Amino acid sequence: MTRIAVLGAGSWGSTFALVLADAGCEVTVWARREETARAIRETHRNPEYLGEVQLPDAVTASAEVAQALEGADGVVLALPTQRLRENLSDWRRAGIDLPPVPVLSLAKGIERGTDQRMSQVIAEAGGVDPARIAVLSGPNLAVEIAARQPSGSVIAAADESIAHTVARWCAAPGFRSYVSQDVVGVEVAGAMKNVIAIAVGAAMGLGYGDNTCATLITRGLAEITRLGVALGGQPATFAGLAGMGDLVATCTSPLSRNHRLGNALGRGLDVEAALAEVGQTAEGVATARAVEELAQSLDIDMPITRSLVGVVDHGVTIEQATSALLSRSVRPE
Amino acid sequence: MTRIAVLGAGSWGSTFALVLADAGCEVTVWARREETARAIRETHRNPEYLGEVQLPDAVTASAEVAQALEGADGVVLALPTQRLRENLSDWRRAGIDLPPVPVLSLAKGIERGTDQRMSQVIAEAGGVDPARIAVLSGPNLAVEIAARQPSGSVIAAADESIAHTVARWCAAPGFRSYVSQDVVGVEVAGAMKNVIAIAVGAAMGLGYGDNTCATLITRGLAEITRLGVALGGQPATFAGLAGMGDLVATCTSPLSRNHRLGNALGRGLDVEAALAEVGQTAEGVATARAVEELAQSLDIDMPITRSLVGVVDHGVTIEQATSALLSRSVRPE
Repeated sequence: MTRIAVLGAGSWGSTFALVLADAGCEVTVWARREETARAIRETHRNPEYLGEVQLPDAVTASAEVAQALEGADGVVLALPTQRLRENLSDWRRAGIDLPPVPVLSLAKGIERGTDQRMSQVIAEAGGVDPARIAVLSGPNLAVEIAARQPSGSVIAAADESIAHTVARWCAAPGFRSYVSQDVVGVEVAGAMKNVIAIAVGAAMGLGYGDNTCATLITRGLAEITRLGVALGGQPATFAGLAGMGDLVATCTSPLSRNHRLGNALGRGLDVEAALAEVGQTAEGVATARAVEELAQSLDIDMPITRSLVGVVDHGVTIEQATSALLSRSVRPE
Repeated sequence: MTRIAVLGAGSWGSTFALVLADAGCEVTVWARREETARAIRETHRNPEYLGEVQLPDAVTASAEVAQALEGADGVVLALPTQRLRENLSDWRRAGIDLPPVPVLSLAKGIERGTDQRMSQVIAEAGGVDPARIAVLSGPNLAVEIAARQPSGSVIAAADESIAHTVARWCAAPGFRSYVSQDVVGVEVAGAMKNVIAIAVGAAMGLGYGDNTCATLITRGLAEITRLGVALGGQPATFAGLAGMGDLVATCTSPLSRNHRLGNALGRGLDVEAALAEVGQTAEGVATARAVEELAQSLDIDMPITRSLVGVVDHGVTIEQATSALLSRSVRPE
């Protein structure tokens, strides 16, 4: 029996615990709050995020990370992007190291300040050998996977055998995995789709229709691909499920929190009010700030990202930003 | 004053007449039915397709094609794909030739029986010099353009100066054109998006969510690109507004008639009942049949197209087709 520790009890961590259990693993979720851990242990529900979803019996939980890691054959990191380093550092200071097993990163984003991808943060702050790290991305809206709808994901690791091992952990019926070695491409795609989803949400909040959204998604993928290829990713990754697939799912679903944040901005709320309305972490804002710095240092044109940072940090109105974006003459077409 | 004849008074033809008039052209629409022509002339509305939209005063109409073509500096062909040849042949037999001016094709599809693209049909059946033919595609849902929402389109012609001329005709505020020479790519993308839109509509009709739709759209674009490149199109066209942009708009909008047709199939209606429910031409079915023949002769794998033909012509159930598509192991990822 494969034992997996899922560190983080948000909606995606809890949903992925369900997938792992459906695939035959024994899963222990680490939840920051003891109430959440107890609810998962005793009722097999996560009242904070997936209240209506019944988790399988093979999912248990603990608020003690050392206990969650005990005997684990694999670790899944499902922590918020901008708090991943802090958590890993706190644990190491407390003498808790991740065991020498494969580590799968579910967080999507770029760390503000360091411009690092999640796998880089895990290697550096968690002291994990990069060869043991895998990342996962794809059109994976959590509520649909929790409802056991069929879906496809890309699992990438520098060491292909690690990617295959992780694919076996989550081989639940309907959860199809495709193995890749393009860690950079999968991580950049997963991070950047949140930025584009905010822009699309904002356009919808402003009253624009499907033509405008499709235009932003298309130019968004071009912008993501430019960045990803400059960082060493493979063009094919951006045209596949981890790139275009995840982007289209996130941008067209009104369920995505980044989409909802954008929608609130489009309706005229300021960033604080919009974040308060969404009530969950929207990684796209922090990622946009990090990526804008990165794009400047690499001299890559990223107009959608730049416009979003203008709105959230520099007092540009959402109407000005959208109108500038839509009137840009873009080459090549 | 530029005079343009728009031949065809369907929803896209009528909407495009509005764009041309907004750009300063004098427009005469040819409508097959005299009642439609009279309604457009007298009330500046097209009761059949765009009842609520007020067309500009510069749009008039005639049921006589020779009258519509009189003094035209340009011709826009907005006829149903599978009836384009028949119309052009009938007119030539009646001694009515298209004048020697640029001709823009708005029809999207592949002709059944000949496997020809629309520009090929226009050249052959209309006796038009291929150098004078332009094609247009992009995320252009008619109702949103009729509401004067901003949008982008690609205009392609083998002779770039023809594409620039056509771009000037339709340079209305908010209707942005990008010029290209990839006629094949733009036509293949425009035709095939209707096929994928039926498949996505069917998945939604069956109750699948945004993850599944995003997966079908992503694999659909890969399938379109394979066909288009084999026929001589440029890969960049498929990643741009005419390819991915039009595909995403058509597949995610519940307004698209091909999407609605697929939705009806997904809910269990047979093809005749589904077509009756939609009540308008859904080009995707005929295009799928033509493309399946073409793909076989070129030895290109097009699983979504093949599945759709299986459902409409060979008694495969929609559940069988969808489940086979979603369980396919697709490379590369």
